[in-house]
Amino acid sequence: MQFSDRLDEAIAKKGNPICIGLDPRFDQLPKSIADAAVAKHGKGPAAVADAYLVFNKAILDAVADIVPICKPQVAFYEELGPLGLQCYADTIQYAREKGVLAISDAKRGDIGTTAQAYAKAHIGGNNGGFNADALTVNPYMGRDTLEPFLEVGSKNGAGIFVLVKTSNPGSGDLQDLSIAGGKLIREHVAEMVHSLGQKHRGARGLTDVGAVVGATYPAEARKLRELMPETIFLIPGYGAQGGTAADAAAGFRSDGRGAIVNNSRGLLFAFKQEPYATQFGEKDFAAACRAATQKMAEELNAVLKR
Amino acid sequence: MQFSDRLDEAIAKKGNPICIGLDPRFDQLPKSIADAAVAKHGKGPAAVADAYLVFNKAILDAVADIVPICKPQVAFYEELGPLGLQCYADTIQYAREKGVLAISDAKRGDIGTTAQAYAKAHIGGNNGGFNADALTVNPYMGRDTLEPFLEVGSKNGAGIFVLVKTSNPGSGDLQDLSIAGGKLIREHVAEMVHSLGQKHRGARGLTDVGAVVGATYPAEARKLRELMPETIFLIPGYGAQGGTAADAAAGFRSDGRGAIVNNSRGLLFAFKQEPYATQFGEKDFAAACRAATQKMAEELNAVLKR
Repeated sequence: MQFSDRLDEAIAKKGNPICIGLDPRFDQLPKSIADAAVAKHGKGPAAVADAYLVFNKAILDAVADIVPICKPQVAFYEELGPLGLQCYADTIQYAREKGVLAISDAKRGDIGTTAQAYAKAHIGGNNGGFNADALTVNPYMGRDTLEPFLEVGSKNGAGIFVLVKTSNPGSGDLQDLSIAGGKLIREHVAEMVHSLGQKHRGARGLTDVGAVVGATYPAEARKLRELMPETIFLIPGYGAQGGTAADAAAGFRSDGRGAIVNNSRGLLFAFKQEPYATQFGEKDFAAACRAATQKMAEELNAVLKR
Repeated sequence: MQFSDRLDEAIAKKGNPICIGLDPRFDQLPKSIADAAVAKHGKGPAAVADAYLVFNKAILDAVADIVPICKPQVAFYEELGPLGLQCYADTIQYAREKGVLAISDAKRGDIGTTAQAYAKAHIGGNNGGFNADALTVNPYMGRDTLEPFLEVGSKNGAGIFVLVKTSNPGSGDLQDLSIAGGKLIREHVAEMVHSLGQKHRGARGLTDVGAVVGATYPAEARKLRELMPETIFLIPGYGAQGGTAADAAAGFRSDGRGAIVNNSRGLLFAFKQEPYATQFGEKDFAAACRAATQKMAEELNAVLKR
């Protein structure tokens, strides 16, 4: 089944549109996990990679029945070199085995056969690469550099999410520039995304060509939704970056579908934040993550009409 | 010593501005190398990664004394998963041991701590990542997403190359759009690159903030050179993509400095092309690569005033 249908079904089944961002940081892990990994491997990338996998599996075990999709950020694994990327592959495989879809957040982009190679690495099926359900991609190099990702992905029931309006303060440097006719760059990219999606529409009316649209810019998200009515939005910036449930809701369709909201630190490290720190503490970090996820689901569902 | 000085010195010492692109393709390798790897590992990513490393080392052995810099394209290694990335790390390390600088062609780009993690992975020194001399980066997410790469890189004497005008046919979809005042997006990015470089100027008058400018657009390159007088251009698109020595020369400064010209297939697989196929053949693929590199150096030096 194609990506948009699988995701839309998973959201309906789990009852919320949360994407949990698997962005571990060694200095923020529960001490017991970090210590055990160092005792086993000594200090270094092997210990960090081992600890990340133990942590990710515990998190996935805790939320697999309530979360439709996860998004590991490859940079935090790539930082460790090849050992980290083995952990990345193992994390994605584990998520999918537990019934959680996985987006490889890699923001790749390149020409022709190079783009194909990236696509095979991330959404190329089970061929020695990472085998995710979708991949984030960067549009700066042009439409012909996005098409190879779609070609490879569609053979494997996988999708892409194109960067349109990102959540960072400097995102406007390029994305908000006006071009001829008063259109903005991000709107130009949105039209490209909508157009690319036309050949990749699923049975549930959504396409496999998604868009990254930050929760930190709700007014912009509303306008972009008009330009991309069938596009699934991946909405980062919720929580730690300042986006609220109401902000995130701006990116959804009027039927309450068509978007997922990512949260990384706010869920993974809930055990460091109140009320979860007191209620669960470090020992029950996974239960704290589950409780924070349930809270986020309630907040989102309260503002989404479905 | 900082990146721009090391590169400018290496170009002067080797007597040409060639960047050899280490983009192996399994089906194009000499049969003896492919067969030996499959005999050792069976078919699969382990065999491919092994063959790539054997091939890359032989190529580097053949050209290390005449080439200042190399550029492995990470996509072709990432395609193989973790084993491929070990080969990538080993290739970069081997190049540097042989006195050849290495650009990690990864076109990364992301926000804040994520950008930092990528930077540590690729230009973060010897910490378990890939430890290259420079990294290609994508500007779509804005200036604040480029700065973390510079922060990390400058601590390790490493540089970055920002995508400005890429060599592919569709590069104009975004890069050639006019913004307010008639300026083009690529020119806007060029000004950002020039501005970012001001705090990273080396003793030889060039900066550590380079620009990717395709050989396939010489008129555009001439204009971009005016906007970025101290910027090192990484010029792809020579050879297989259609760019000539004269086209590539358009990106250089009037003193014949400030740019490197990449060639991948034309050098790596020279043994499949005339006159090298007849003169050397598959058995002497490395000597064929050396001869093609020397020919390219002659062609470039004939059109560059130095």
